[in-house]
Amino acid sequence: MTPSARRRPIITLTTDFGTRDHYVAAVKGALLSMASDLRIVDVTHEIPAHDVAAGSWILRNAAAAFPPGTVHLAVVDPGVGTQRRPLAVVSAGRIFVGPDNGLFSFALDEDPAARVVCLTRVPAPPAGISAVFHARDLFAPAAARLATGADALSLGDPVSDPVRLPAAVAPVAPNGRLRMRVAHVDRFGNVVLDLPRAAGAAWMDGVSTARLIVPGAPVPLRCVSTYGEAPAGAPVLLWNSSGFLEIGVYLGRASDILGLRVGDFVEPQSR
Amino acid sequence: MTPSARRRPIITLTTDFGTRDHYVAAVKGALLSMASDLRIVDVTHEIPAHDVAAGSWILRNAAAAFPPGTVHLAVVDPGVGTQRRPLAVVSAGRIFVGPDNGLFSFALDEDPAARVVCLTRVPAPPAGISAVFHARDLFAPAAARLATGADALSLGDPVSDPVRLPAAVAPVAPNGRLRMRVAHVDRFGNVVLDLPRAAGAAWMDGVSTARLIVPGAPVPLRCVSTYGEAPAGAPVLLWNSSGFLEIGVYLGRASDILGLRVGDFVEPQSR
Amino acid sequence: MTPSARRRPIITLTTDFGTRDHYVAAVKGALLSMASDLRIVDVTHEIPAHDVAAGSWILRNAAAAFPPGTVHLAVVDPGVGTQRRPLAVVSAGRIFVGPDNGLFSFALDEDPAARVVCLTRVPAPPAGISAVFHARDLFAPAAARLATGADALSLGDPVSDPVRLPAAVAPVAPNGRLRMRVAHVDRFGNVVLDLPRAAGAAWMDGVSTARLIVPGAPVPLRCVSTYGEAPAGAPVLLWNSSGFLEIGVYLGRASDILGLRVGDFVEPQSR
Repeated sequence: MTPSARRRPIITLTTDFGTRDHYVAAVKGALLSMASDLRIVDVTHEIPAHDVAAGSWILRNAAAAFPPGTVHLAVVDPGVGTQRRPLAVVSAGRIFVGPDNGLFSFALDEDPAARVVCLTRVPAPPAGISAVFHARDLFAPAAARLATGADALSLGDPVSDPVRLPAAVAPVAPNGRLRMRVAHVDRFGNVVLDLPRAAGAAWMDGVSTARLIVPGAPVPLRCVSTYGEAPAGAPVLLWNSSGFLEIGVYLGRASDILGLRVGDFVEPQSR
Repeated sequence: MTPSARRRPIITLTTDFGTRDHYVAAVKGALLSMASDLRIVDVTHEIPAHDVAAGSWILRNAAAAFPPGTVHLAVVDPGVGTQRRPLAVVSAGRIFVGPDNGLFSFALDEDPAARVVCLTRVPAPPAGISAVFHARDLFAPAAARLATGADALSLGDPVSDPVRLPAAVAPVAPNGRLRMRVAHVDRFGNVVLDLPRAAGAAWMDGVSTARLIVPGAPVPLRCVSTYGEAPAGAPVLLWNSSGFLEIGVYLGRASDILGLRVGDFVEPQSR
Repeated sequence: MTPSARRRPIITLTTDFGTRDHYVAAVKGALLSMASDLRIVDVTHEIPAHDVAAGSWILRNAAAAFPPGTVHLAVVDPGVGTQRRPLAVVSAGRIFVGPDNGLFSFALDEDPAARVVCLTRVPAPPAGISAVFHARDLFAPAAARLATGADALSLGDPVSDPVRLPAAVAPVAPNGRLRMRVAHVDRFGNVVLDLPRAAGAAWMDGVSTARLIVPGAPVPLRCVSTYGEAPAGAPVLLWNSSGFLEIGVYLGRASDILGLRVGDFVEPQSR
């Protein structure tokens, strides 16, 4: 099977809007008013309110699965309507649209040739731009244009200093210790650490059980490929489907069992 | 960029069905069984169960963002299967389909030339019409037909007395006092009042801080254009993206801070 | 109105992934990377984690509403990456794709001629198959191929012994008593029993009020066609929109009022 000759443009949505209000639908209405053939895919609208780092993490993991040319519209935007800049980021064949607050840091990290544009020349919709709903009135019109072929530079000027979040890669401390941070806890209670597979984990080589110091005490974690390799209830360590180190529990919630939350630190116990 | 020459028909869905059950999918399956080219957009399925006024408020705000010709299927329908009438409302270029219980009051208010039709001539699906699932068996078939070009009058007869909710516009009491009602509290805790911008708010003219009497005491609210103009935690007053007066708090929840819930009343303090 | 000449392929999604993480979007990205013209419909992603029986129940009820040829991708998969088999089930003109753990039992029950295939020959995506995300890397590619015309047997070999759940039909005990199980409680608190209309319910014939023994005591239930036929708060008994017996309460929650939960048993009181 080959991809269709003419691909319909795809726009994904990642927000902290929730799904109880009319906000997501209003963004979709704005998109479809501009380009009726768009394919719109929700990533999530349940980013915790104003949590830019959480939004960035989810978007990073989702974006990897979409075909080249996809436009990712992401709005976690406590500074809406203030001086914070509206951006488009062109990175590794994808286009990201949203506020300049660090949401797209990963896309800058992933592609050194990424280009960033401040969206100052997006034509306003007939009813104007609400200072509290740039997602509908500024980002959606920009995303619709970009998805249907407009060049980012037709919508604004280059920016060289976008806001960046701290890199989501576990640092090695001066004392040589690796400090891994809990980057995400998923619906199943799986605990995702900020250690990408590419960074290596020599302390896991050749061991069937690794010991991690979670706040308080060392915990033995069986090194596996999938949850079901361990008995129910036993914590395991594996590389997850996005290439990050993850602590899981077969038929259980690792986050609850180990008392781990986003932002906690975990270290390998020296052998 | 111009709109596509041939627009795919759009149907939006607003219900109190939640997203845990099969109900929403069944409605979509019914729609797609009738017309495979439909574009279906969820507004929300999290209207509180049986809360017609809440559904009407969300739909009103969402519908404004969609292009002309959109069909809005809305079902908050405690009276399903009883004598309450099934309606189509054609208002300002949009079509609304759902039960006759006030869901579409705003569409009648917004367009004095709105037409209302009782859907008595919608062909039943092969398996018949379940008395407890008109959304799937009656409203979806009607919406699919209307979205693909059928005239409302081909599906039933005109109605002159649809059920109407009280108008969602803050009334001025006989004593000259404006009583604004909390119409909605959004995901961020923003408190939306039933005062449309078009109704005017002379008491806000020329002041940088307005005082509102919330239940209990007067509260000073800085008049702003966007949340971030005020320091974190300070309540502000602004015209929201749908043109209603809103109380917000930058990086906080106004509803929690001020103890306001849907149905509460708020008054401007006389100067 | 006749169905479109050329129907776009439909894929529905039923999972326990929730909507907070990137998992659902990653599956959709994988699908759209394979076939950009697919129509994707969410059934639900809120199946309780690892609850295969709950997933099977929702999928069964949803699938009935979709047109022939629809592919239903369903993943409630605690055994992901272990020896459990990946399946496609072709039943009554529909195709089901997911793990071999009983999710598709109903489809085997509904069509004695159903065919089951173990998906051993699905080409892997360029980045390989993650042992913890078969939904993205194995089931989605298989579903996209099946939706766009591939034959199931091109993707694997027939299987004669798929895992089956106990049939979801209330059994008659040796003593002649009918034991109905609560199969589902919906968002409104309606209590759905595992008694299909086709199985008959002679004990309801000719009575306006039936008595059911819920745990503890007999309860009189008015036999109705729709909720609103009874006064608010009074429990009723009706055949629901999927053809199962249901206990409801007009403007109330039957599950709370009667204290019934999934798995509880209910019997008709002998007359």
